[in-house]
Amino acid sequence: MAQKPSIPKGTRDFLPFEVAQRTYIFDTIKEVYKKFGFAPIETPSFELSSTLLGKYGEEGDRLIFRILNSGEKMKKADVQALEADNLARFANSLAEKALRYDLTVPFARFVVQHQNELSFPFKRYQIQPVWRADRPQHGRYQEFFQCDADVVGSDSLIYEVDFVLMFDEVLTNLGLPDFSIKINNRKILSGIAEVCGETEKIVAITVAIDKLDKIGTDGVVKELEEKNISAEAIEKIKPLFAMQGSNEEILQQMKTYLASSTIGQEGIAELEFVLDQVAKLALKRAKIEFDVTLARGLNYYTGAIFEVKANGVQMGSICGGGRYDDLTGLFGMKGMSGVGISFGADRIYDVMNELNLFPESLTKGVKLLFINFGEKEQAFCMYVARQLRNEGIACDIYPSAAKLQKQMKYANDIRATYTALVGETEIAENKITLKDMDSGEQTRCTIEELILKLKEE
Amino acid sequence: MAQKPSIPKGTRDFLPFEVAQRTYIFDTIKEVYKKFGFAPIETPSFELSSTLLGKYGEEGDRLIFRILNSGEKMKKADVQALEADNLARFANSLAEKALRYDLTVPFARFVVQHQNELSFPFKRYQIQPVWRADRPQHGRYQEFFQCDADVVGSDSLIYEVDFVLMFDEVLTNLGLPDFSIKINNRKILSGIAEVCGETEKIVAITVAIDKLDKIGTDGVVKELEEKNISAEAIEKIKPLFAMQGSNEEILQQMKTYLASSTIGQEGIAELEFVLDQVAKLALKRAKIEFDVTLARGLNYYTGAIFEVKANGVQMGSICGGGRYDDLTGLFGMKGMSGVGISFGADRIYDVMNELNLFPESLTKGVKLLFINFGEKEQAFCMYVARQLRNEGIACDIYPSAAKLQKQMKYANDIRATYTALVGETEIAENKITLKDMDSGEQTRCTIEELILKLKEE
Repeated sequence: MAQKPSIPKGTRDFLPFEVAQRTYIFDTIKEVYKKFGFAPIETPSFELSSTLLGKYGEEGDRLIFRILNSGEKMKKADVQALEADNLARFANSLAEKALRYDLTVPFARFVVQHQNELSFPFKRYQIQPVWRADRPQHGRYQEFFQCDADVVGSDSLIYEVDFVLMFDEVLTNLGLPDFSIKINNRKILSGIAEVCGETEKIVAITVAIDKLDKIGTDGVVKELEEKNISAEAIEKIKPLFAMQGSNEEILQQMKTYLASSTIGQEGIAELEFVLDQVAKLALKRAKIEFDVTLARGLNYYTGAIFEVKANGVQMGSICGGGRYDDLTGLFGMKGMSGVGISFGADRIYDVMNELNLFPESLTKGVKLLFINFGEKEQAFCMYVARQLRNEGIACDIYPSAAKLQKQMKYANDIRATYTALVGETEIAENKITLKDMDSGEQTRCTIEELILKLKEE
Repeated sequence: MAQKPSIPKGTRDFLPFEVAQRTYIFDTIKEVYKKFGFAPIETPSFELSSTLLGKYGEEGDRLIFRILNSGEKMKKADVQALEADNLARFANSLAEKALRYDLTVPFARFVVQHQNELSFPFKRYQIQPVWRADRPQHGRYQEFFQCDADVVGSDSLIYEVDFVLMFDEVLTNLGLPDFSIKINNRKILSGIAEVCGETEKIVAITVAIDKLDKIGTDGVVKELEEKNISAEAIEKIKPLFAMQGSNEEILQQMKTYLASSTIGQEGIAELEFVLDQVAKLALKRAKIEFDVTLARGLNYYTGAIFEVKANGVQMGSICGGGRYDDLTGLFGMKGMSGVGISFGADRIYDVMNELNLFPESLTKGVKLLFINFGEKEQAFCMYVARQLRNEGIACDIYPSAAKLQKQMKYANDIRATYTALVGETEIAENKITLKDMDSGEQTRCTIEELILKLKEE
């Protein structure tokens, strides 16, 4: 029966200190979400397969975890499909349900399904795990949390402004010393394609220039050539790579560049409004950068595009987001503009670890561990512990009269702040001897003094 | 492409007020768990199938959700097993992973896997969803949360005492007016079987007497007869059904009843210690009842057995727990005694709803919604909102200058406590007009006054 225990590749156990650190990130995000008027929802871990399939492209479909039908339903397995090597059809015959792949599609489904119970604009946040059958590798997991906030039912740019403030506030509160919010607008990208005379090839153009960071100017030009973008168009695109200066300076250059494109001008105006308002309301710590090559998730976004990077750390983007126009259309509800953001909790966790930003208090155990010297002492300790806990103080009693050294080691292992030593003298005086586990200092005090001291800290 | 959206049977979406109410329950439990020295862990949603299968009996195995292997691995489907109607083998060939069925087996796996990183006794709590392929029906879900706390690595009865105090404290803090903690001990059940001369048939006896509540004395006797318990033994069991009086009185009767059974006396002594300590430390609101017929999960528990019921409500047990001796033995780690409890969050939710126990504050939205009268006013509101949020006050701005009535309806829908009305006069005076959405009362105040007022509440 015994087996060497392990967990599936790409999944993780979390020890107490890790749960505490992760909870700290989630709570910091939640607090800001709430302050900005977002309310929490939760959706089931699995959806009907039909809700998820076809929403993430072919590659996405392959990465969706399917849940095997139970019992007699298994008999409907399409063995012919298996023999014909049609694995997708075989899977469909075996799995009516699938694990959530992201929070966005379930959110769209939720909005349409509950539209009569909601008020629009509807602002929700959602912090739940998602699952992807990605090949496990360093820093990529099959189960991870997403932390999303979205507004649907309004195209007001107020929300773009709020989201920039929220990125800033969450990451400032988490103690990140240096980070940049990059912003662009899909309409500016459309304008660029228009100005180049390659409106049809906007996807190819955008995918290429989005890689500027990684492959440099030459690489992008090469890719544009490979995608059959005309030499003339490429000459028009090149100046974008060299654009430098403040956001205002780049805005001025782009106004000129996009002078002939109505949609481009619209994108500029939207971006200018957001930058202007954000400047007036003052960011706490973030830098904000207009990045004309930013294009993440192009096929999805229709207005603002956001990305956040931690500076001075080797790490991809730690947050992202943008405006989309027809998410709920997938489920038959048209004309609902939306805008949303997401914090990459796992990457933020790694950054915070690397920079040592977690408060030490998160890894502390109980405030006080009572050392156990025997039956009579134990009863007294239980009585004192009861009073401490009634005052909200976390404490514990070692469960047997083991050797002092063993008990002290345990107190250190569980990171108790203090130990309480209670012997005959203490019981007679109705006191305890308190030992500070850091300094080693010992003091004798009454129970009232003890409560006061521990509550103060 | 459009489809009428729905979710799998037996799963649920949670609207904001439901998330707030559920979070309230979880947070109340967590707070008590921490105070009693328990630390959180988390395990992956899915485990290797081999970790879970065979741990919950045949029926349990059938209720475990399996995850379909991805990609090429699907080709290993054992079609012969399907043809031979061996669905279990067919499933095994298709699904290496399975969704967590409870938190107990993953916890045992966790303890064995991480034994060198833990200090014993190890006290953990875990609040995570579990999944069961139960036929969906009223009040039974395929996805639900469990809220467990366990200690492994000590047989000290301190923990039994603590768990009773924890049941009491959590449910008192949640506002349950009347509830009973039932307690028994597996050793007492063993003693009964011994005294009756039916040691071999302890399972049958215990399963039968556990049903006393539901089927009455006659029903239990009938079942005992059907299970071939001797008439003599049944005569010895009958007096148990009639035992009445205080816990002390029943204890006295059982001491006599079990006088000839060593294990029975041991159970009595353990129970007496727990009742005695609990009486000394004083319960806040719970009644505690020694119930000699309580036997839940017999094959599992080896010492104390707990069950909690809300009185005056039609509802099964809302919490349970007990001591087990060899949980980690499943994974090759012997001799680790453990004891644990679990809160049934869904049932507690239903009880609280029925008795109207949720604080009204949980369903409130933002503190303040700014009504939007146009571009200039909006800019001013954004400026004031920034200051409020900087002070930690949750607020929001209606995103367009819609009709006042529509905006006011929205404020009511999202359950804003106040609205702010800002027109030319207010901007000129650097003030806002504050409207109490309950009373309708309006006051004009400066931003400083506004902050003071809202922070105070």
